[in-house]
Amino acid sequence: MQKLRVESFSISIDGFGAGPNQSMENPLGVGGEDLHQWFLPTKTFQQNVLGKSDGTTGVDNDFAEKGFKNIGAWILGRNMFSPYRGLPNLNWKGWWGKNPPYHVPVFILTNHRRESIEMEGGTTFHFVTEGIHAALERAFDSANGKDVRIGGGANVIRQYLNAKLIDEMHLAVSPILLGSGENLFLNTDLRSLGYKCTEHVYTDNATHLIIRK
Amino acid sequence: MQKLRVESFSISIDGFGAGPNQSMENPLGVGGEDLHQWFLPTKTFQQNVLGKSDGTTGVDNDFAEKGFKNIGAWILGRNMFSPYRGLPNLNWKGWWGKNPPYHVPVFILTNHRRESIEMEGGTTFHFVTEGIHAALERAFDSANGKDVRIGGGANVIRQYLNAKLIDEMHLAVSPILLGSGENLFLNTDLRSLGYKCTEHVYTDNATHLIIRK
Repeated sequence: MQKLRVESFSISIDGFGAGPNQSMENPLGVGGEDLHQWFLPTKTFQQNVLGKSDGTTGVDNDFAEKGFKNIGAWILGRNMFSPYRGLPNLNWKGWWGKNPPYHVPVFILTNHRRESIEMEGGTTFHFVTEGIHAALERAFDSANGKDVRIGGGANVIRQYLNAKLIDEMHLAVSPILLGSGENLFLNTDLRSLGYKCTEHVYTDNATHLIIRK
Repeated sequence: MQKLRVESFSISIDGFGAGPNQSMENPLGVGGEDLHQWFLPTKTFQQNVLGKSDGTTGVDNDFAEKGFKNIGAWILGRNMFSPYRGLPNLNWKGWWGKNPPYHVPVFILTNHRRESIEMEGGTTFHFVTEGIHAALERAFDSANGKDVRIGGGANVIRQYLNAKLIDEMHLAVSPILLGSGENLFLNTDLRSLGYKCTEHVYTDNATHLIIRK
């Protein structure tokens, strides 16, 4: 049974998955990088994203690593792909260079049509204008029986939560306050939607929570 | 220098300090008791509140115990004192019986005037209708140089945070989802107000956070 999973999604104590005012200089919004202090030193980030050979092991890395296992496609909100708003900048091909760390099809939710972009290393960016259900169907279809991972942002995760489509969500709560930005819990009553926290593990850097239906 | 402190305030992963629909049967709102699973077994709760002789020691109890140290007065919202709304029920003298666990003056923020009530064991309930600044001034004045503790709820804490009057806040984040109720972070941008998380300690039952200006 294919699952729709959120993995390694970092939020602040006050529930924000990114800071305010995303821009070229602040891809995660102002203060947003602080959310990821548990993730950046891990072997998984250092190897999969930066192409380096070192990095930490342990609980933080175990969660980071699990997030890449058995994933056949990704879904991203358009703000995760680009700092541009409105009509697409056709020169922009994501934050990640020629060989993005996905290596599978990536479906980007947007209001603006754009041709798919084939990148090196197996990543293809597809732009979906027909909404979250169409994106999920295409992602499941192209995932070769594997699971689909939602990368974010908070708004996209909320849409899928409110449609009760997410099977499992791993949150990493970082011990910081962001104050404003994209709140994961905004108008999203997880208890009424049938979600529960089924596991919690702590490290020095984050509280890892597993939330399931 | 007298401080205004929040201590042992429990919130859910999604930021709620109490569940919805507070009533006589659900003093902490529906689901709200689950917030306090870290606190209820501690020696501090068992002795100070229930008058028993046992209870757990360790990090959870250390935080619970600290919350009662050097406190000369309390401030509570009217929902913390009573399930009644509107004009006061003059027979109601709080949830805690004849000898409440405060043993100092307690100032209750309300819109309805009521005579002070002297209880056994040193607790006196005073009803303040002139707002948060008046309540704080009276609390500091009557605290004999000690600190003042805000017991809650979320709405009262938010008011004091937004006025930048809280010096130190200990939050215990319980690994549960409440979905709705009283959200501590609603319209309260702690980062812009100058607050930071300066300590974090984890136990099996909660993430303990210290937030300071």
